Amino acid sequence: MTPALGVCYYPEHWPEDWWDRDAARMAEVGIKFVRIGEFAWSKLEPTPGDLRFDWIIRAMDVLGRHGLKVVFGTPTATPPRWMVDKHPDMLAVDANGRKKGFGSRRHYDFSHLGYREEAARITQLLADAVGNHPALGGWQTDNEYGCHGTTYSYSPAAEAGFRTWLEARYGTIAALNEAWGNVFWSMEYNRFDQIELPNLLVCEAAPAHDLDFRRYASDQVAAFNKVQYDILKAKRPDLPVIHNFMGRYTEFDHYDVAETLDVASWDAYPLGHLAMSDEPEDVKHHYMRQGEPDYQAFHHDLYRAVGHGRMWIMEQQPGPVNWANFNPDPLPGMARLWAWEAFAHGAEVVSYFRWRQAPFAQEQMHAGLLRPDSEPAPAYHEAAQVAQELRQTAIAGKAAKGRVAIVFDYQSEWAWQIQPQAKGFSHSAHVRAVYAAFRKHGVDIDILSPSTKSFAGYDIVAIPALFAWNDALREAIADFEGHLLLGPRSGSKTQNFAIPSALAPDLPSNLLDAKVLRIDSVDPTLEVEVRGGGGAVRHWRERIETRAEVEIEDADGWPVLIAQGKLHYLAASGNKALTQRIIDYLIAEADVPTLLLPAGVRSRVRDGFRIYVNYGSGAATLNPAADESGYVLGTAEMPAAGVTVAKLAKAS
Amino acid sequence: MTPALGVCYYPEHWPEDWWDRDAARMAEVGIKFVRIGEFAWSKLEPTPGDLRFDWIIRAMDVLGRHGLKVVFGTPTATPPRWMVDKHPDMLAVDANGRKKGFGSRRHYDFSHLGYREEAARITQLLADAVGNHPALGGWQTDNEYGCHGTTYSYSPAAEAGFRTWLEARYGTIAALNEAWGNVFWSMEYNRFDQIELPNLLVCEAAPAHDLDFRRYASDQVAAFNKVQYDILKAKRPDLPVIHNFMGRYTEFDHYDVAETLDVASWDAYPLGHLAMSDEPEDVKHHYMRQGEPDYQAFHHDLYRAVGHGRMWIMEQQPGPVNWANFNPDPLPGMARLWAWEAFAHGAEVVSYFRWRQAPFAQEQMHAGLLRPDSEPAPAYHEAAQVAQELRQTAIAGKAAKGRVAIVFDYQSEWAWQIQPQAKGFSHSAHVRAVYAAFRKHGVDIDILSPSTKSFAGYDIVAIPALFAWNDALREAIADFEGHLLLGPRSGSKTQNFAIPSALAPDLPSNLLDAKVLRIDSVDPTLEVEVRGGGGAVRHWRERIETRAEVEIEDADGWPVLIAQGKLHYLAASGNKALTQRIIDYLIAEADVPTLLLPAGVRSRVRDGFRIYVNYGSGAATLNPAADESGYVLGTAEMPAAGVTVAKLAKAS
Amino acid sequence: MTPALGVCYYPEHWPEDWWDRDAARMAEVGIKFVRIGEFAWSKLEPTPGDLRFDWIIRAMDVLGRHGLKVVFGTPTATPPRWMVDKHPDMLAVDANGRKKGFGSRRHYDFSHLGYREEAARITQLLADAVGNHPALGGWQTDNEYGCHGTTYSYSPAAEAGFRTWLEARYGTIAALNEAWGNVFWSMEYNRFDQIELPNLLVCEAAPAHDLDFRRYASDQVAAFNKVQYDILKAKRPDLPVIHNFMGRYTEFDHYDVAETLDVASWDAYPLGHLAMSDEPEDVKHHYMRQGEPDYQAFHHDLYRAVGHGRMWIMEQQPGPVNWANFNPDPLPGMARLWAWEAFAHGAEVVSYFRWRQAPFAQEQMHAGLLRPDSEPAPAYHEAAQVAQELRQTAIAGKAAKGRVAIVFDYQSEWAWQIQPQAKGFSHSAHVRAVYAAFRKHGVDIDILSPSTKSFAGYDIVAIPALFAWNDALREAIADFEGHLLLGPRSGSKTQNFAIPSALAPDLPSNLLDAKVLRIDSVDPTLEVEVRGGGGAVRHWRERIETRAEVEIEDADGWPVLIAQGKLHYLAASGNKALTQRIIDYLIAEADVPTLLLPAGVRSRVRDGFRIYVNYGSGAATLNPAADESGYVLGTAEMPAAGVTVAKLAKAS
Ligand SMILES: [Zn+2]
Ligand SMILES: [Zn+2]
Ligand SMILES: [Zn+2]
Repeated sequence: MTPALGVCYYPEHWPEDWWDRDAARMAEVGIKFVRIGEFAWSKLEPTPGDLRFDWIIRAMDVLGRHGLKVVFGTPTATPPRWMVDKHPDMLAVDANGRKKGFGSRRHYDFSHLGYREEAARITQLLADAVGNHPALGGWQTDNEYGCHGTTYSYSPAAEAGFRTWLEARYGTIAALNEAWGNVFWSMEYNRFDQIELPNLLVCEAAPAHDLDFRRYASDQVAAFNKVQYDILKAKRPDLPVIHNFMGRYTEFDHYDVAETLDVASWDAYPLGHLAMSDEPEDVKHHYMRQGEPDYQAFHHDLYRAVGHGRMWIMEQQPGPVNWANFNPDPLPGMARLWAWEAFAHGAEVVSYFRWRQAPFAQEQMHAGLLRPDSEPAPAYHEAAQVAQELRQTAIAGKAAKGRVAIVFDYQSEWAWQIQPQAKGFSHSAHVRAVYAAFRKHGVDIDILSPSTKSFAGYDIVAIPALFAWNDALREAIADFEGHLLLGPRSGSKTQNFAIPSALAPDLPSNLLDAKVLRIDSVDPTLEVEVRGGGGAVRHWRERIETRAEVEIEDADGWPVLIAQGKLHYLAASGNKALTQRIIDYLIAEADVPTLLLPAGVRSRVRDGFRIYVNYGSGAATLNPAADESGYVLGTAEMPAAGVTVAKLAKAS
Repeated sequence: MTPALGVCYYPEHWPEDWWDRDAARMAEVGIKFVRIGEFAWSKLEPTPGDLRFDWIIRAMDVLGRHGLKVVFGTPTATPPRWMVDKHPDMLAVDANGRKKGFGSRRHYDFSHLGYREEAARITQLLADAVGNHPALGGWQTDNEYGCHGTTYSYSPAAEAGFRTWLEARYGTIAALNEAWGNVFWSMEYNRFDQIELPNLLVCEAAPAHDLDFRRYASDQVAAFNKVQYDILKAKRPDLPVIHNFMGRYTEFDHYDVAETLDVASWDAYPLGHLAMSDEPEDVKHHYMRQGEPDYQAFHHDLYRAVGHGRMWIMEQQPGPVNWANFNPDPLPGMARLWAWEAFAHGAEVVSYFRWRQAPFAQEQMHAGLLRPDSEPAPAYHEAAQVAQELRQTAIAGKAAKGRVAIVFDYQSEWAWQIQPQAKGFSHSAHVRAVYAAFRKHGVDIDILSPSTKSFAGYDIVAIPALFAWNDALREAIADFEGHLLLGPRSGSKTQNFAIPSALAPDLPSNLLDAKVLRIDSVDPTLEVEVRGGGGAVRHWRERIETRAEVEIEDADGWPVLIAQGKLHYLAASGNKALTQRIIDYLIAEADVPTLLLPAGVRSRVRDGFRIYVNYGSGAATLNPAADESGYVLGTAEMPAAGVTVAKLAKAS
Repeated sequence: MTPALGVCYYPEHWPEDWWDRDAARMAEVGIKFVRIGEFAWSKLEPTPGDLRFDWIIRAMDVLGRHGLKVVFGTPTATPPRWMVDKHPDMLAVDANGRKKGFGSRRHYDFSHLGYREEAARITQLLADAVGNHPALGGWQTDNEYGCHGTTYSYSPAAEAGFRTWLEARYGTIAALNEAWGNVFWSMEYNRFDQIELPNLLVCEAAPAHDLDFRRYASDQVAAFNKVQYDILKAKRPDLPVIHNFMGRYTEFDHYDVAETLDVASWDAYPLGHLAMSDEPEDVKHHYMRQGEPDYQAFHHDLYRAVGHGRMWIMEQQPGPVNWANFNPDPLPGMARLWAWEAFAHGAEVVSYFRWRQAPFAQEQMHAGLLRPDSEPAPAYHEAAQVAQELRQTAIAGKAAKGRVAIVFDYQSEWAWQIQPQAKGFSHSAHVRAVYAAFRKHGVDIDILSPSTKSFAGYDIVAIPALFAWNDALREAIADFEGHLLLGPRSGSKTQNFAIPSALAPDLPSNLLDAKVLRIDSVDPTLEVEVRGGGGAVRHWRERIETRAEVEIEDADGWPVLIAQGKLHYLAASGNKALTQRIIDYLIAEADVPTLLLPAGVRSRVRDGFRIYVNYGSGAATLNPAADESGYVLGTAEMPAAGVTVAKLAKAS
């Protein structure tokens, strides 16, 4: 598929007589897709039942006249004020028991069935009204599920839904008591209607109670999405239904939600996300105008997995944003680089947020392609350049399949938040560290869901910290002929959040003869060097008993990396040097080809092209790779924020 | 006017047979004014309607017999417990929705009209009872409006009041929706009674919603004060009505409240305020026994502006206080220095808080002029010395008009709290940095309100970070013939908190041909040097497009200081060195006379006298100024905490 | 008495056919006592009135058959879910007004009289059912009173109880108003039923209001315990009733609760408590695998005082725990060392928590003597070693009486939390610093309650920071012939939390002619050296007026240590060096014998034996003491985590 540019547009924010000029300029820039509608409910239905779809159809007419395709967003993330009068209990409740009111956005509870019906109603009405419009090119459901901490609600609706969900899961209260270990502190229930949500307790809830609540909440997001998907697909089976997910957001299982999506898109704000992240200060400072070099790529690969191979950027940062603690100006060229990198990782569309900076309301300090006075902002010109370069290079196809894969599991993220056992242990930081260590060598990576049934075709698969096995994954491991790296904590729990009777990592001894006896978790400033140099154990260390071969041990003689055939088990979290050393070791063992990338430069292959991007703040010189036949964009001399595209000698 | 000393006294705290001895000693110290009454409601009306004014009249008799004048404080900051039984909904509600109960002070909601009537009732009763007492010298309304975060309440009373206020302001709901930009996220209201307060939302409210709530809350403080003012002035048109404001407190618009005051006073706690401030640690440590050298002065000048030229210190710190995280002992002499500095800046009265340290209740660790055992504390002797020195020097008149003025605007403080865009950007810290840079050179400064109609008579006017212009100020700027310095963010919003259509700084191009295109906000530890040395841009940087002359630019070539004639625009916040460099530059350009002050020494001129104070922890030697004819108190050799008063050759 | 080992066991967590094998292994290890029952209510009474005691009696039968004695814990810390249906208002309310729900443990309000009756009911039923069981060896009431912040509740039940308690204490509302100083801010009440709890106020409550609420809450814990004690003693006057207190926990007065206990036990988690403490980072890091060397000992001595001379460890950490921010693996040997140290300080029983690590629920990461797979964990072998060594050494008797005593007072802890006057001033840290300075020299210490009537028999008594005198203590001071050290803040308040009329330290001038005039509290990073070297004043400094001899003064000339005969008053808190210097000085003056202990080594004498323990991370060599006749366990060469036991030449 030929990649394309898009933009987010809010015709309701501007005088109708500006629309045509706006559409003409979009077309001039080279934009193909325009997302509209997702915040317009109060204009579409100003009072209950008073439907005003005419104006948005006229906006679609205008856009269509300029050859633009519309992605229509259902407006369910921003129900109008009158909706709260109609359903006062649709508001979510925070973990402190406070109702979260109207006046911003996402003011609804995923568990509220009345609102779910309202969402179905407006979706059906819109599908009927615009579903056959010739400019229509796709749908977006809602907007950024879960943003502002909205996946979890502690409302009566959530409590009622949770009880029903538990009864369906466990059948009897005795089974639930057994699964949660409720005998532990006399926490046994007599009936499902005694169960409450795991907030506002005296101390922590049973971990299985907490995990089940998160599973329940995640299922409600999936159920909410399915309602819209079913309606939209029924109307137009040919058009993609898309949701715009977010970066660093893991409160629901995105694989589950994407069961009723055709494409996964995400909203990429490299600078805002870095500023608000828990990255070290030096990383924040060094990359404040570029974004962390592996952060975008990881999410591109993750959402390609979530989206069944199809991925868009629905919102791409174009300049300074408004919502981070600090909002730096990007390095000139970054709006181009980010787009190119997304395309390299398989994006079908990169859509800038937003067309024109809004001078009013919450996001008035958020840049657009146009300034509030309608003059071009820097990203306007960068977008036009990208459009021209896409035509010039004629890049198409899909992201190449990687030789390395990493399993990313949302439930593991929840599990280790519920039971960190070491303050600050982060599942996703641990996974991203493994990702970055591979990518430093120019190795292309795929992300896999934990329900993957086979690892065939990969040279190396890493499962960095999976909390509990499932049957599919156990089989995939048993059948895999490549190199496997299991990280610490893998298999350390059952699906009911208990320690397995055989102890972690809970694999048959013919696969891995090892037991985790206990954990040593310490302040991460206190590292333990590994023997032979090259890094240190940090934060998390497992005391294992094993008959496998010890490949690395620490200064105290505790095994760190063990191997049984090609299956490797890492019994600790490491500092950056140790993580890199272990990945280097695996790459060498598996004989995976690598690139010699300059610092700050990253690459990815898409259908016969290798795209290089330079996240460094200075120039860099590429080392031509053996499989390349020359550059079709840029040269080996990459300036800061530079993009170079090499043609591969043979299609990958 | 001849300045005088005062003291705060609570006859209800002590046996009646102590009063005469106390009054005699006050007179011996040289005290003229005694504030009483403001916490005595439960003694004045122990149960509803049971009025007991006799004892306080006897206390006034005693004080009057010793020649003391009474400032009578209305007791409305501490309604008795029975009042809460009568008006259970008079209690304020915090931003988390929790009612703030009885048991300390300020337990009332400014929006509660029932309590406002009770306040009027007790004020009228007291005015009738003591209004003609011969010892009466003035009134104080309530006590420290807003202290302990009491300006904002999120109660039903506040919600109802806010809706009424909005309807009065906007007339129609459509006008409000337009003003707030509610179309942005479908936040449009159908009716005023749907509007809620901007707390407990999913994410932030529209900034105009938040700003209007702050305006509303500020107006309620003003309305509350007006009720008392009208009653007190009706009784005694000849006596001043005063309120005691606080330092570093900006939650309501003090200019508005002071529309119904004759004098603005403030409660000066130099050490407590520094300990609880966000000043850097080295400043906190260096000045922990003196207070930050420009902090008191800034507030003196501010409250002189608020008080229509009339300013008192109603509460002056006399020794260690109880309420800061650390409560150091002042350097010997500071209780004298602070009083002299206040007089230098125009104070009519400096009143120490309090006469005798109370051995009980919340403030038992707060020093007084007397210890709890009635022996003199150090400040007792220092106050006596000040009284003697006032007589000796015969200082009188008013604070001299400055040649430099700075506009301080409360709404700008709120605006930049609502939308910092850079974590930690502080409007008032920014204003005080400009103030300190002028004052370092011995330049006397006036503070101006944003409703100032003319800048005539000043050589330099600074408007450091004003969020939105009003007509008066635009005219003052257009008509001004002196040097003007506009700081970053000035004019960057409309009064409805939107970006002006012409972009910031939103002045006619004949005044300033410049546009702010975007903002670059970064971690303040990352400074960008300006070219030519002398400081760095820090925290906030604007990308401007201008045809004005660029006087300073930064290392990246971004204009920092531009000028069009005498109008200068500063497009960034700077570190201390850059701020000083810019002020030095302006002082030189405007040819404003300066003094060569030793480090730690500050000065101010009052009616023919220049008062020097030494905030340093060591001795300092003054450089005699050309306009001085010699010292009438102290010498050029100033010890730590020293005060020197020079006589000017000609009246200023 | 011969010391013994114990273990905590939960038969309800394991299949009944495991019990016999478990009991046999316990006996093999050398365990004598088994605590059971305290979390089993939902198994003992699954629905209201459905009593199922048969299984636990069978468990006792099994344990008894193997010669084990049972400590039976009443299950009142974990009422079943149905109890909350029966008494919905039994749940406590936090300081933010939020009800704390079911789903973990300790979900009850000490003020709720209905639940107190339920606790009495189940206690009586259990006493009747198992009270005469031959295996029964003692009782435990409830479990860890106050854990998870459960001493204070802000519920309607607490409010009602507090009003009744106040009326009983003060008689008239006028007396209460006087005692609290309510005149201060018109806080006077008309009736007791107007009084509310001191949470959710506008600013802080009157300190006497806050202190009385803490006294009230403490009294409810004592009353709750008394109900159970009376029942259990009535059934079996011969068996000890024990409660398991905690480390670093001071929210109720343990002396008061122990008025209805025969033995005080505590739950010793040296690593978890250090990790969660406010100790400096270097101490946390250095001792992360051993625990802070004086922390365990202090609590042993404290609980020996609380328990009328009888002390147990009811829960001893055996390996990594689950609940700290970091959970390190102990140094090999620490489970042995901690037990030996407890015995040295007089423990009758050291009971490891727990027998087998539970693979489910909240504490699944908490080590036991057995791993979840029933294999021995390291502590299993260490416990067996201790049992063998106890037999070998034949240690018995009691902890020797110390020559030094320190008064520890819970109300002072509350007082200085209510009114720190210096951020971070900690009463208990201050007391422990004095304790550690004595113990560094091998001096054995006793802890005394503030109701001690005589100090006879001690060479030195320290009262580090007692907020208010009582008659007993005044007499003990007046009559004491040894050396007395009073710390800063001592006697600085009356029992009603007011400054005494004679000012602190409020002793007759024939005892100590000194007055504290004011306090200088500063950031603890700013120390003031004392003259003559050897430490610095830090955090807290009193300006005193005295005719006593000044033994140490600081660089500003403020007296730091003064003495009148053998009574010494310390007018400041000091850094570690100053505290040590003062204790060294006192030890020398009082001629108390000391030991020359290697760094990291500590000692304690029990009935003719001196036990040395090595908390250092390396080996240490003991200097044989003159009063020792040789080693009965270990040698002078102590490895890390080593234990050496010397026999004294004469019984101490
Ligand atoms: Zn290998
Ligand atoms: Zn100029
Ligand atoms: Zn002495």
